[in-house]
Amino acid sequence: MNIGIVGLGLIGGSIGLRLQTLNHTVYGVVNNKYNQEKATERKLATHISTDLNILRECSVIFLALPIKYLIKPNKELIDAIPLKSIITDIASIKEPVINTWEKLHPLFIGSHPMAGTEHKGVNAGSNDLLENAKWLITTTPKTDINSVKILSELITSMKCKVITTTPENHDQATSLISHLPIFLASSLIETANSENNLIMDKLLQNIASSGFADTSRVGGGNSELGHDLAKYNSKNILSAINIFKTNLEAFEKAILEKDWELIFNRLEKSKYIRSKFLN
Amino acid sequence: MNIGIVGLGLIGGSIGLRLQTLNHTVYGVVNNKYNQEKATERKLATHISTDLNILRECSVIFLALPIKYLIKPNKELIDAIPLKSIITDIASIKEPVINTWEKLHPLFIGSHPMAGTEHKGVNAGSNDLLENAKWLITTTPKTDINSVKILSELITSMKCKVITTTPENHDQATSLISHLPIFLASSLIETANSENNLIMDKLLQNIASSGFADTSRVGGGNSELGHDLAKYNSKNILSAINIFKTNLEAFEKAILEKDWELIFNRLEKSKYIRSKFLN
Repeated sequence: MNIGIVGLGLIGGSIGLRLQTLNHTVYGVVNNKYNQEKATERKLATHISTDLNILRECSVIFLALPIKYLIKPNKELIDAIPLKSIITDIASIKEPVINTWEKLHPLFIGSHPMAGTEHKGVNAGSNDLLENAKWLITTTPKTDINSVKILSELITSMKCKVITTTPENHDQATSLISHLPIFLASSLIETANSENNLIMDKLLQNIASSGFADTSRVGGGNSELGHDLAKYNSKNILSAINIFKTNLEAFEKAILEKDWELIFNRLEKSKYIRSKFLN
Repeated sequence: MNIGIVGLGLIGGSIGLRLQTLNHTVYGVVNNKYNQEKATERKLATHISTDLNILRECSVIFLALPIKYLIKPNKELIDAIPLKSIITDIASIKEPVINTWEKLHPLFIGSHPMAGTEHKGVNAGSNDLLENAKWLITTTPKTDINSVKILSELITSMKCKVITTTPENHDQATSLISHLPIFLASSLIETANSENNLIMDKLLQNIASSGFADTSRVGGGNSELGHDLAKYNSKNILSAINIFKTNLEAFEKAILEKDWELIFNRLEKSKYIRSKFLN
C-alpha cells in the first residue's frame, strides 16, 4: 500500500519505520528542511518531503501532529488530503479532533496508539515503540465501517492490539486512567516541596526513593501534553478530580474520626481493584 | 559483638543475615516454635530462640517488631531487655515509638532503615535487602551520644547510609514523601473504579498501562502498614493531605478559568522539582 504520514515525530516516525518493514511504500511529510534531512538519514519513510502534495496517491494517511494542529488545521493541510484516502490521527484526545475532522473529510477515523516515551521529534521514533501497544479506534455514527476494517487490519499487522470504542468513552476513560495521574503526580511533587525549610528539604531529598519516584513519575513528563489534555479534555478531567477528591476526603474523614478499620478496608479494596485492572 | 534481634521478619531477618557475614554473634528471638524452625533453617541468626533471656549478653538489640508491639510493648519484653544494652527499633514512625521507649530504657535510639518489599515473615529477609539503604537515626535531648556513635558505626558497616534527624522531622518528611502517596494511590484506584458501567470498566482495564501502574503502585501494597501509618502519624498525614488538596485545587481552578499557561508553568515547575528530589 501507499501510506502517508504527516509528521515524523515520536509516533509518526515509529509508524513509518514499522510500515516499511511490512513492505509498504511510506510517504512522510515534515515541516522543514532540517527535519527532512534528519528523517531521511534515519529512513523514517520511503519518500520524505516538505511538500504535502506527495500524499496524493496514498490510500491511508496518518496525521501524526500535535493536538493543536489537528484541532485548528491549516488550509494547506486540508486541501492536500485526498478525499478518497482513509485518514486517521494519533492524538491522546478524541472528541475535539473528531468534531473538527468529521466536518472536513468523509473517511476520517479518530484513533490513539497508547505508547510513548519522554522523547519527541524526528530523532525519537523507533521500530519497536508500537510493538504490542494498544491502539484505540473510535467510531461515531458518521464513521465509514469499511474504512475502519481496512485501518484495523493495517494496525493489527503492525503488531498492535486494536480496541474499538466511542470518542466520548475514550476521553472519559483516559481522563481517569492517564490524564488525572499527571495532575496528581504534579501536586504530590509540589506538596513534598512545600516546606520552605532547608533542613527539611535536605532530608526529603535524602529519603525520596522508589515509592515517591513511581507515584510522581508522570508529573515529571511532557508539560506541553499536560497543557493540551487540560485544555481539550477539561470536562472529563474536572470530573475525575472531583471524584478523586471525594475518595481522598474519605481517608481524611476516617483519620479524623479514628476509624482505622475503614482505612484498612479501603486499602484492601484498592489493592484488589488494582490487581484486577493491571492483570 | 553479641547482637540481639527481636523478630526475624523482613527487616529483622535481613539484619541477622547481614550481621553474621560481618562475624558478629547474633541472638534472634521469635514468637513461636514454627518460626524458630523456619528461621533456624534459613540461618537468620547464630542462635534462635523463643526465650527473650538469650538477649542477656547483647551489646546492641534491634527491636524488629510491628509498630503496635513497639507502642504497647508487653511486660515480658521490657523486663528482658538489659539496661546496659543499646536498643533501637526499625519502625516507619518515630515519635510515638520514642515516646514509649525513652521512658523505658536509658539507651534507646529510634531508627528506621528505608527498605522493603511486599513480603513479610521469617521467609522474607535477605542478605541484600539493606545494601545501600538509607537508615534514619533520630535523636532527642535524651539520646545518649556515645550509643548513637556505636549504632551508626554498626549500621554503616552493614553498607547502609546513616542519616541523622529528629523524630519530628522524620515523621513529617515521611508523611510527605512516603505516607501521603499511599492514600493518593489508593484514591486514584477507587476513582478509576468509580464508573459502575461494564463497558467503561472493560475499557479502563484494557487501557490501564505503565502510567497508571506506577502512579497507583503504593496503593496496592501492605494495608496493615497503611493502617498503622494513618493511626500513628495522623497529624502529619492530615496536614500533607491538606497541602496536597490545595495544590490539586490550583489545577482545578486553572482549568475552570482556562488559564492554560498556568497549567503549563506548574507542570514545568514540578518536572524541575522532581529531578532535584530524585537526583
